[in-house]
Amino acid sequence: MIKRIDHIGIVVKDIKEALKVYQQALGLGVTEIQERPDLGATIAFLPIGESEIELVQPVTIDSDAAKFSEKRGEGIHHICLEVDDIEKALADLRKKGLQLIDEVPRTGPRGERLAFIHPKSAHGVLIELYEYRESETAHDSDSQ
Amino acid sequence: MIKRIDHIGIVVKDIKEALKVYQQALGLGVTEIQERPDLGATIAFLPIGESEIELVQPVTIDSDAAKFSEKRGEGIHHICLEVDDIEKALADLRKKGLQLIDEVPRTGPRGERLAFIHPKSAHGVLIELYEYRESETAHDSDSQ
Repeated sequence: MIKRIDHIGIVVKDIKEALKVYQQALGLGVTEIQERPDLGATIAFLPIGESEIELVQPVTIDSDAAKFSEKRGEGIHHICLEVDDIEKALADLRKKGLQLIDEVPRTGPRGERLAFIHPKSAHGVLIELYEYRESETAHDSDSQ
Repeated sequence: MIKRIDHIGIVVKDIKEALKVYQQALGLGVTEIQERPDLGATIAFLPIGESEIELVQPVTIDSDAAKFSEKRGEGIHHICLEVDDIEKALADLRKKGLQLIDEVPRTGPRGERLAFIHPKSAHGVLIELYEYRESETAHDSDSQ
């Protein structure tokens, strides 16, 4: 059911400063820095093995990242796990009594279908689930 | 330099309760549950792709996990990245001015050489580095 860790999302105040650590000191590569007005954030993507680190800098004060940063400071915001079948995963989680943030999957900008599990139901960890569909690539999604 | 995410360490109050979510609801497998008196903790290992989730239950009140739990509650404690050469990694990090918790690598129970970077220097994330050496398996380490 779960294939791999897709990414770890880390909220930072300033991506340029954070890249001094994650890119320059730790030596990770950066594939893209994306403006995400839908999230009120800018995101830097740093691949690492079969996973990625995402550095998330809040841009608007009402963004999730800004609220997290105000409450907890910088740090790990969530982990994202890739699943084969997100509908089945959500049904299984619901059956076990877990609280979901998204009862129905949303579609992200890269064509991924995604849903969050509430951290209250996952021992303090905000878990995002991704399902990638071959017919829904980022390119297809852009052209819709 | 960095090869993959080795594991994500999650502090939980009760491993049995946490396994209801991570094993039974999310469907991850459990390879081992280890008593670790050196850490004052019990750890459950759940492989996921090329990485693992480690559920860490504090056993003694003065353990790192217990202090974390008391301050922050349950949640992600650290991430561990596998590097090719931990000495070189630490030298690079030192050169860039990062604060290290371990100036010199320690050897863990599976033969891994490990060191922690201070979260103050990594934008709120406690980062552990691992280097595995073929000549230092868990078995070799046990027999020393």
